[in-house]
Amino acid sequence: MNRKKVFFTLGQLLLLEAALFILPAVVAIIYKETALWHFLISAGVAAALGGTLMLVCRKRSNVIYAREGFAIVALTWLALSAVGALPFFLSREIPSYIDAFFETVSGFTTTGASILNDIEALSKSILFWRSFTHWIGGMGVLVFIMAIIPSVSDRSIHIIRAEVPGPIVGKLVPRAKDTARVLYLIYIVLTAVMTIMLLFGGMDLFESLVHAFGTAGTGGFGVKADSISSYSPYCQWVITVFMIAFGLNFNLYYLLLLKKFKSVLKNLELWVYLGIVAVSICAISVNIYSIYGNVAETVRHSSFQVASIVSTSGFATADFNLWPGFSKAILLILMFLGSCAGSTAGGLKISRILLLLKMGRNELRHLLSPKRINSVKMDGKQVDSAIQKNAANYFILYFFCFGIIFLLISFEPFSMETNFSAVAACFNNVGPGFGAVGPASNFAAYSPFSKIVLSFAMLLGRLEIFPMLLLFSVGLWRKK
Amino acid sequence: MNRKKVFFTLGQLLLLEAALFILPAVVAIIYKETALWHFLISAGVAAALGGTLMLVCRKRSNVIYAREGFAIVALTWLALSAVGALPFFLSREIPSYIDAFFETVSGFTTTGASILNDIEALSKSILFWRSFTHWIGGMGVLVFIMAIIPSVSDRSIHIIRAEVPGPIVGKLVPRAKDTARVLYLIYIVLTAVMTIMLLFGGMDLFESLVHAFGTAGTGGFGVKADSISSYSPYCQWVITVFMIAFGLNFNLYYLLLLKKFKSVLKNLELWVYLGIVAVSICAISVNIYSIYGNVAETVRHSSFQVASIVSTSGFATADFNLWPGFSKAILLILMFLGSCAGSTAGGLKISRILLLLKMGRNELRHLLSPKRINSVKMDGKQVDSAIQKNAANYFILYFFCFGIIFLLISFEPFSMETNFSAVAACFNNVGPGFGAVGPASNFAAYSPFSKIVLSFAMLLGRLEIFPMLLLFSVGLWRKK
Repeated sequence: MNRKKVFFTLGQLLLLEAALFILPAVVAIIYKETALWHFLISAGVAAALGGTLMLVCRKRSNVIYAREGFAIVALTWLALSAVGALPFFLSREIPSYIDAFFETVSGFTTTGASILNDIEALSKSILFWRSFTHWIGGMGVLVFIMAIIPSVSDRSIHIIRAEVPGPIVGKLVPRAKDTARVLYLIYIVLTAVMTIMLLFGGMDLFESLVHAFGTAGTGGFGVKADSISSYSPYCQWVITVFMIAFGLNFNLYYLLLLKKFKSVLKNLELWVYLGIVAVSICAISVNIYSIYGNVAETVRHSSFQVASIVSTSGFATADFNLWPGFSKAILLILMFLGSCAGSTAGGLKISRILLLLKMGRNELRHLLSPKRINSVKMDGKQVDSAIQKNAANYFILYFFCFGIIFLLISFEPFSMETNFSAVAACFNNVGPGFGAVGPASNFAAYSPFSKIVLSFAMLLGRLEIFPMLLLFSVGLWRKK
Repeated sequence: MNRKKVFFTLGQLLLLEAALFILPAVVAIIYKETALWHFLISAGVAAALGGTLMLVCRKRSNVIYAREGFAIVALTWLALSAVGALPFFLSREIPSYIDAFFETVSGFTTTGASILNDIEALSKSILFWRSFTHWIGGMGVLVFIMAIIPSVSDRSIHIIRAEVPGPIVGKLVPRAKDTARVLYLIYIVLTAVMTIMLLFGGMDLFESLVHAFGTAGTGGFGVKADSISSYSPYCQWVITVFMIAFGLNFNLYYLLLLKKFKSVLKNLELWVYLGIVAVSICAISVNIYSIYGNVAETVRHSSFQVASIVSTSGFATADFNLWPGFSKAILLILMFLGSCAGSTAGGLKISRILLLLKMGRNELRHLLSPKRINSVKMDGKQVDSAIQKNAANYFILYFFCFGIIFLLISFEPFSMETNFSAVAACFNNVGPGFGAVGPASNFAAYSPFSKIVLSFAMLLGRLEIFPMLLLFSVGLWRKK
């Protein structure tokens, strides 16, 4: 591994984080909060660490291969979370560092699982930083840096591949840097539009921004104890629509910009995604109608919760933990599905599921007619066998990791439903689960050990398993 | 599909079932029970059905390909269960036919999930038949018929492949018929040895036989409400050891007979299986020590429950539903693992898990060094890519089916833990789950719809998914 390049890039990204601390610091100035100093200290630490790394590793070669890509991605997310936790910890608004780390990992990985018992007691700037981490994490800080630092070579496709979710990474435009720029522009514009629409609904600028950050990153950190419940139906519907929108493959927006409507309409993942959302909303609406007693409220709550879970956001307008088993089962399954590849959502991703199911169907066909040759096609194109293998192995490692994590947190005195859904909610970057970690409660009661395990689960899920697992591989660290 | 051959074989197997009814009928004569007549009527129905099928399809070709193998296996298990349920239903000892069908499927698939609220109220001959279905199902009725009906051609390896569990089916001896004979002989001898050892422990012949049947088939139907709890520690240990023994690959016993000790010792699956058993027993013993307070009892209960779950038997000496979460999590994971391929157990099978993990590790290696070529080896031999693909696709379809079944039974008013573990217990052919379907309770409270779904899940799991799924394929039924 080209260690110097890896740690040099890590240094660059820590410097970037130092710069990002300025935004919540401005919020602290506006609201005259003492957290200002904690953001400045944190920025200082990030800058000092980043500067040192860059200085020490300045004599580097620029060569990046797959292994460097994985190492950069995994180490960056760990380091940014470790430093990003400082403002929470220094301000004593989250007195335990492990709790602060959990909250920050949950933010950057756009999970939205929280250890806060009283969100409304936090200062505005801290809440702003908390939600801002969702937005930063959403599209991946690394895609970000590629878009703004021109020196990065085109080899950085390795980084995108290691970070962008989904089985197949398409290059939208010839150069990775330009791809990142286009995606980021779409991300910013959608966030801005959403902020404006929430302002129209009566939220103030602070609340609009915070919720737009949380929605864009499909994170789910809010500013109220009851999440989105106390906002107007208009605001709830705006958030519902944007949660679904941020679960779409961002390439589709780019294709829309290019007016390639046919390509968009032919996209199988899009239709399956929308189909799953529609069917889930209908099924849950019928199942919970008796609780709310009128159609408008029933459909609003079921739509919101379905959009929130399938996009792995985790906002809530209702305590779905109290819904009947059938609705909870649908939501549990949606947690595993996730949204489209190339979106900010977590989970297994619809396109990967489709690919796996097509492979399964092919196996059945093969068993019936062993001599017939079956190929797997997605959107009319034959899928390379290496991609099929990768998807299958992803699925295997996914459930293997799931089992290990579930076992590790089962020392906790909670029900199997709680522990199982806690793993599902963290690993799939959803946020709330069921039982004692339902939308009306939080992860505060878990032990520090379990919080570290679940933080790891969030990173594992957000980075699509491989980079985090490779950190444990001797092969990754070996010098070439 | 060669339909005539399929239905002719189905007819043969129904005739065999008619013959098998004689054994419980003898028990009914010994204990002077009226169920005698119900066994005779059932035998008559089986014989009439079987005879008719054979007569109608007598002008057949003997060609069997893979598709015929799958169709025979799937249809046979369905038909034998449907007819096998008759004695329960006719004797009114299980008044609902759906309940009787569930109980019989549970028997033949060696699951051991029961709908009986008061087992001890049943007549001896009915209890005998109930456990006898485990023994018949254990090694597969089809392997049985191949061993005793000489006319079946060597093409019947297709049937073994469709029925014998595990990713790789080795032919022990050149002719499929002889393989089946050898396996069946081992099965009978082990059952006999176990019966004798239980007799030494003070069980009467009836109880010894019934429990030997349940253990050999890794089924788990007993004759007491508290399963094995009230028997002596000696009997509990005998059952523990035999449950582990019946979870071993039967090929290993054959190798022992041939004195190929080295091949046995080099078998990776064997050591991983025994390792998992040992580690699970130790971990659970430490975890539950405070409940029992003395080492002997703690180790006995943890060993028994681990052996019972990992071999997917489902007997119980303790209500593990009341154990702490960590022990329950271990047992839940063991349910999915199952035992060795080529045993009578359910679950994913250790060798398949090993194969999948090796594939996952290879993917990580491939990501680090894309140009290096990695092969997957099991017991020193390179695993064919078709077998790897099959294992991966099995894993995919396994979780896909799991999700669908879970969704279908989630209409039930039970907790997520209950429903989830009910699916895990039925699909993996374990028997008892957690919560309301724990070892101290049963499946009686489920709706008829859910009982049918769970019966299907048991068949799906026992026949390793493919045959049952192929029943829904138009391709299977198409004439050549």
